[in-house]
Amino acid sequence: MVLNFEKEKLVTELKKLKPKKVLVQLPEGIKQNASEIAEIIENLNIEVVFSGETAWGGCCISPQEAKNVGADLIVHFGHAKFIDIDFPILYMEVKDELNLHPLLQKSIKHLKNFKKIGISYSIQHKHDIDKIIRFYENEEKKVILSGKKGRVKYEGHIVGCQYSGLKAIEKDVDCFVIIGNQFHSMGAAISVEKPVVLVDVYNDKIRDMDGVREKILKQRAISIQKLKDARNVGIIQEEKLGQQFGTSEYLVDKLKEQDKNVILITMNELTPDKLMNFYNIDCFIVLACPRIPIDDFAKYEKPMVTFKEALVALGMKSWDEILKIGII
Amino acid sequence: MVLNFEKEKLVTELKKLKPKKVLVQLPEGIKQNASEIAEIIENLNIEVVFSGETAWGGCCISPQEAKNVGADLIVHFGHAKFIDIDFPILYMEVKDELNLHPLLQKSIKHLKNFKKIGISYSIQHKHDIDKIIRFYENEEKKVILSGKKGRVKYEGHIVGCQYSGLKAIEKDVDCFVIIGNQFHSMGAAISVEKPVVLVDVYNDKIRDMDGVREKILKQRAISIQKLKDARNVGIIQEEKLGQQFGTSEYLVDKLKEQDKNVILITMNELTPDKLMNFYNIDCFIVLACPRIPIDDFAKYEKPMVTFKEALVALGMKSWDEILKIGII
Repeated sequence: MVLNFEKEKLVTELKKLKPKKVLVQLPEGIKQNASEIAEIIENLNIEVVFSGETAWGGCCISPQEAKNVGADLIVHFGHAKFIDIDFPILYMEVKDELNLHPLLQKSIKHLKNFKKIGISYSIQHKHDIDKIIRFYENEEKKVILSGKKGRVKYEGHIVGCQYSGLKAIEKDVDCFVIIGNQFHSMGAAISVEKPVVLVDVYNDKIRDMDGVREKILKQRAISIQKLKDARNVGIIQEEKLGQQFGTSEYLVDKLKEQDKNVILITMNELTPDKLMNFYNIDCFIVLACPRIPIDDFAKYEKPMVTFKEALVALGMKSWDEILKIGII
Repeated sequence: MVLNFEKEKLVTELKKLKPKKVLVQLPEGIKQNASEIAEIIENLNIEVVFSGETAWGGCCISPQEAKNVGADLIVHFGHAKFIDIDFPILYMEVKDELNLHPLLQKSIKHLKNFKKIGISYSIQHKHDIDKIIRFYENEEKKVILSGKKGRVKYEGHIVGCQYSGLKAIEKDVDCFVIIGNQFHSMGAAISVEKPVVLVDVYNDKIRDMDGVREKILKQRAISIQKLKDARNVGIIQEEKLGQQFGTSEYLVDKLKEQDKNVILITMNELTPDKLMNFYNIDCFIVLACPRIPIDDFAKYEKPMVTFKEALVALGMKSWDEILKIGII
């Protein structure tokens, strides 16, 4: 990664917006840059407080946190706008200026059997997308960008909870190429049936995501069965405005009909530590980020399912229907 | 522990208060009782949501969390009222009905050289305090309860961030006896100079806290020196209303005078995971619970100091002055 925080853009935007005090959110990987960002903002005579909470995506937006510290603007680095909220936010998407050419070249042998490729990129590579398309076209590939669906902001843009943009082009491609990281490529691999190839910018390598889908779908089946067998069920809702997936009302009645005890739990952020002491709960339904139950399968002692998976366990949807719309 | 949640009292109070929906906070050790508490409350036709956030003390009170889930009452178990806030809270202090007699008897040989003993108890033992006093008086001890100072609610009551009640009686006693757990006895041991004996209800044993004071004061001296040497300093404030210790304004100017870079960080709850990515910060000043830098010395990669300790590092107070008023 060769990250460009676009400091000049930051200064220009702040001069335009004229905040008195800003709350800055940095993704985990760039929290070490807080001091240099503080300097730029303070030089404009603007007060600055950093959010020490995690910022995994554009979903992690807390106007309440900003209000608590008296900020009149949130500056959110590293992600694109994700949802509309009633608080001013300046999104600084951050460019990765790494020369992708060597990695793209490495990817060619992984793509030798595919003619038509569907491409998705994580936000840091948006500025390079024309170059990326040209590169593959020169290699005689037909390139299609994933669709701009739901909460993704740009054509070809990928986020961790929305793969319908890939599903929309699946019939027209032979495989998918993800420019970014394992997190996004794993989400793609379990959402589509065509092969997924990761151009792994973080680890400087190409990875075929073969086998990931089967492994994870098996884990999901186990978790769904655990909810079916559970006596005590906890339903977890997060306060994060961008992480509201499904509603509890719908599920509570069905769970009670099936003679299960249910408790509702609210959290700012779900972590294994916080859940550990709810010993008597047999299975949790997570109405927050659907990637938590899936990606963190091994991190939690108790089984967890997403909203969609809960519908399957309760007999309200079939597993095949879920696979069709995408399990995330 | 033989915990009594006082279910009848809960029902009586809820019938009186008539909430529509409650947010229940349970300390970590009794989160496993959520389902039975849910049943009691739901039987009164009151909706209930559990806070999945930690509830270490009466300081962990979040009206915002209650408002977010639409609750009109917080039911907080296991701690006494700690601060005044503008939201209705029902405190259920929880009784530990363990027969303390065997443990008190075991404590006698640890107290053979002491005539006058100062006693503090954690809130679960409040209902037993008359019995405890009688027991020691029968053993020919003179018993004095620690003072009701600051945020402690009752005479003899102990909380983790307030030891001035013990200091107030220190000149009149030969030693202190803490009825409760290691956390409170450790706080006592570093706050007073007289010996501290723990009647450890959780581990069913008596513990002399000898040596703890010296070990921890040495760690504190190291951390204070680290702040003196630091180039980049982070000041952490928590959102928790009961965990506001000191103000940043005061410190920022002094730190800048000493050519240090400073960033302000806000958090809902401080954890090692959340701090890990602020690589470039050399030392943190914690304006949240002062027990975090002290008790979790070994858990954090970077040095951390409390507000009082920061004043020492910056030359605004002497270490001896801090020891005199109590380092917590």
